[in-house]
Amino acid sequence: MAEGRPKIVIVGGGFGGIKTAKLFAKENVDITLVDRHNFHLFQPLLYQVSTSVLSTDEIAYPIRSFFRNNKNVNFFMAKAQGVDQARNVLITNHGEIPYDYLILAAGATTNFFGMKEVEEHSFGMKTIQEALHIRNHVLHEFERASKPYRTPEDRKKRMTFVVVGGGPTGVEEAGALTELIEIQKKEIHNLDFNDVSVKLIEATPRVLPMMPEDLQQKTVEILRKKGVEVMLNTQVVGYDGDVLKLKNGVEIPTTTVIWAAGVRAVDFMKDCGGECARDGRIWIDEDLMVRGAVNKNFFAIGDCAAFMHGDMQRPLPTVAPVATQQADVVYKNIMKLIKGDTNLEKFVYKDLGAMATIGRGQAVVGSPKMSGFFAWCAWMLVHLIRLAGAHANFTVAIKWTWNLISGIRLGRIITNIKL
Amino acid sequence: MAEGRPKIVIVGGGFGGIKTAKLFAKENVDITLVDRHNFHLFQPLLYQVSTSVLSTDEIAYPIRSFFRNNKNVNFFMAKAQGVDQARNVLITNHGEIPYDYLILAAGATTNFFGMKEVEEHSFGMKTIQEALHIRNHVLHEFERASKPYRTPEDRKKRMTFVVVGGGPTGVEEAGALTELIEIQKKEIHNLDFNDVSVKLIEATPRVLPMMPEDLQQKTVEILRKKGVEVMLNTQVVGYDGDVLKLKNGVEIPTTTVIWAAGVRAVDFMKDCGGECARDGRIWIDEDLMVRGAVNKNFFAIGDCAAFMHGDMQRPLPTVAPVATQQADVVYKNIMKLIKGDTNLEKFVYKDLGAMATIGRGQAVVGSPKMSGFFAWCAWMLVHLIRLAGAHANFTVAIKWTWNLISGIRLGRIITNIKL
Repeated sequence: MAEGRPKIVIVGGGFGGIKTAKLFAKENVDITLVDRHNFHLFQPLLYQVSTSVLSTDEIAYPIRSFFRNNKNVNFFMAKAQGVDQARNVLITNHGEIPYDYLILAAGATTNFFGMKEVEEHSFGMKTIQEALHIRNHVLHEFERASKPYRTPEDRKKRMTFVVVGGGPTGVEEAGALTELIEIQKKEIHNLDFNDVSVKLIEATPRVLPMMPEDLQQKTVEILRKKGVEVMLNTQVVGYDGDVLKLKNGVEIPTTTVIWAAGVRAVDFMKDCGGECARDGRIWIDEDLMVRGAVNKNFFAIGDCAAFMHGDMQRPLPTVAPVATQQADVVYKNIMKLIKGDTNLEKFVYKDLGAMATIGRGQAVVGSPKMSGFFAWCAWMLVHLIRLAGAHANFTVAIKWTWNLISGIRLGRIITNIKL
Repeated sequence: MAEGRPKIVIVGGGFGGIKTAKLFAKENVDITLVDRHNFHLFQPLLYQVSTSVLSTDEIAYPIRSFFRNNKNVNFFMAKAQGVDQARNVLITNHGEIPYDYLILAAGATTNFFGMKEVEEHSFGMKTIQEALHIRNHVLHEFERASKPYRTPEDRKKRMTFVVVGGGPTGVEEAGALTELIEIQKKEIHNLDFNDVSVKLIEATPRVLPMMPEDLQQKTVEILRKKGVEVMLNTQVVGYDGDVLKLKNGVEIPTTTVIWAAGVRAVDFMKDCGGECARDGRIWIDEDLMVRGAVNKNFFAIGDCAAFMHGDMQRPLPTVAPVATQQADVVYKNIMKLIKGDTNLEKFVYKDLGAMATIGRGQAVVGSPKMSGFFAWCAWMLVHLIRLAGAHANFTVAIKWTWNLISGIRLGRIITNIKL
C-alpha cells in the first residue's frame, strides 16, 4: 500500500462497518476493517438458525469476500480492546493499529441489566455461537425428555421453553419455536406433547413497541393462536437454570430461558475515552463524531453509538437502518476532512418503518400497515434482498418456500455432543 | 407399543443401521435405533464440510425424520457401551435396553495405529465435529498467518497443510484444500501465497488402493497439477503439533495434520463379548451373526464387523455398499428366526466398484473405468441420489454447480471463536 495515503480504521463488520468500508474502498485511502469474527452476520435471521430453519452459512458471509476486488481494504481479525486517542491508535488483542481516521461500528450485545445469575443460565441471541447453542440445547432437551426414566416433573421442566422480551427477536423466536414443536410432534412418537409449552414474557403491557397499537394486539392474537402463552406486564427477577422467578411471585420450572429483553453496547466502548450512555453506547454529535473526541478524527455509528438531537426523547434505536444511513454520512464527513473542509454534514434519520415475522406465512409490517400472509411476503422479500451473496438469496428463498409448503425443518441436528 | 412383539435393537444410524431399521419398520416388530448423534451423517461428503463447500445440514439428516410414518420405530439417543449377551441387554450411558434381536451397525473411527502423540495433535475426519474443527482451524490459520507481526518461519508453518493417507478421503481432502487456497488467494491481499502448500503423504507406493493402476497414476498426476505435493512411500512416525516427523528423517514444520490414514471399529465393540480383529472389528459368520454369539440373536454389519469367507485374503472393506447389502441379509435372517426358520441366508458381497473426486470437475471411477469431467459428473450423480432428503439433493446440486462456475466457497466462516 502507498505511503502517505490516509489510513481509515473501521471496527466492526456489521451493517454499518461493511457499508462504510465499501464506500471508502473506491477512494484513494487505505482501509483496515477489524472484527473478532471473519464473517458478516445477518442478525435479523439469527432466530432462524436457533430454530433449525437456516444453516449458519446462509446468514454469515465471509468479510473478505465483500472486498475481493478492493486491494486497499485489509481485513484484520482481532478483538478491539480500546482506543488511545492521544496517539491515534486502536488497541486490539493482536497489537496496535495506528489510524488517521477511526470509525467504531462495533455493535451491541445482550443486556441482562446486571442480573448475573440470569446471564449465567439463560441464552443470549446475538452471535452465531449463541444461536447454535440454543439449537443444540432445545433439540437435546427433546431427546432427554423422551427418555423413559424421566419423572413427569423433570419432563415438563425440559419441555417448557421461555422467551423473555417482546421485541421483534422475542416475538419471532417464540413463533418459530411453536413451529419447531409441531414438527417434533410428528417425529417423536414416545413423548406426550401436552407437556410442551412456549411462554413469551414481556415486562411492559405490549409487544413490538415500534408498531401501531392495533398491530401489537394482532401480534399477541397470532402468537396465542400458534400456542404461545403470552405473559404481558410480567417481570423476571431471577433464574438459576432450574426455576424462573417472576416479580409477581410465580415460579416457572424450566431448563430453557432465551433472553431477548434488551441490548447494550459491547464492553469495549467504555475503553475508548468517550462518554457513554447508561446502556454503554458512546455519545456522538450530530456530525457523528464521538462527543469530546481529542482529535477531530474519531467517529462512531450504529448500535454502539448513542445519537440524539433536536426534540428526540431518547437515542435512536439499535436497528440496521440507523447504521447504514450513518455510514453514508460518516463517509462524506471524513472525505470532507481529508480534503480540508471542516463544514461537516449533520445526520438526520429517516425512519423506514418496522416489520416482524411471527412464523410461517405470518408477519406484521408497520408502514404501510399490514399483517398476515402479504405482510409475510413483504418481510421475506426485504430480508432476502439484504442477505449478502447471490447464492444465499437463492437457497434461503428455496428453504423458506419449502418450509412453507412441506413444514419440514432441515437443520435439526445436534452438533455439540462430546465424543 | 404392543407387548409381546419382537424387540429389535439396532446400534448406529449410519448407512447400515438406517436401512435395517427401514426394512424392519414395515414388519410387526418394535424397533429401537440407538445412536449417540440425532442425525444420520453422509460421511463420503464430510471432506466438503471441512473445506467450506457444504454446510453441516446438507450432509446430516435427523434420524427421526426417516421414521416419521413408522410409529414402531423408536429413536434412543445414547452412547452404546456394551452388550450383556447372557441377559439379552444392550448397555448405554442412558441405561439398559433389552432386546430380542440385536444388530450392531456402529461404524468405524480413525485409526492412529497406537501413535498417541499423533492422535492428540492431528485432526481425524469421521464426525461432523471433526470436519468443523478442520474448517475452523484452517480458516483461522489463514487469518493468523496474515498478521504483520508473524516471522517468515511461523507464517510458512501455519500455511503448510498436510494430509496423511492416500485413500479416497485423503485424496479428496487434499484436492479440495488446493481449491480453497485458490479462493483465499483472491481475497487475502496481504499474504504471500508462495508460502502456502498442501502435502499428501502415503506410506505405500500408490494412492486409491481399490483403483486400477493407470487410474492411480492418473490421480497422482491430477493432484500434482492442482499443486498438491504427493509424497508416496513415506511414513509418519511422530507429530507434536509443531513438526511432523517422517521415517526417512525429514521433518515438516506444520500446524495442520489431517489424519486419513486408517480406520478401526469404535471402541465399544470390544465390550460386546465377541471376538475382534486387529482393527477392532467384531468377527461375524457368513449369516452375519456375531461369531460365537451366546444366543442366536446377535448380529453385526458394516464398518464395525469383520466379514471374510471362502478365498478372501482380508475382511471386506469399510465402505457403505457392504453395510447396505448386509442390511438386506440381516433383515431376512432375523425375520426367518422370528418365523422359526433357522436355515439362514449366507451373505455374498457384490462389488460395485469405487470412485473418488479430486476436486472441481475432476474424478476417477473404477468401473466402468473413466476419469476427468465425465467421471466427476458420474460421481456427482451417485452422491446426490444417495443424500438423504429431497431438499439436500436440490441445494447440494445447486452449490456444486455454482461452485464449478463461480469458484466461490460459501461456508468460509469460523464458528468457534471464544467470545
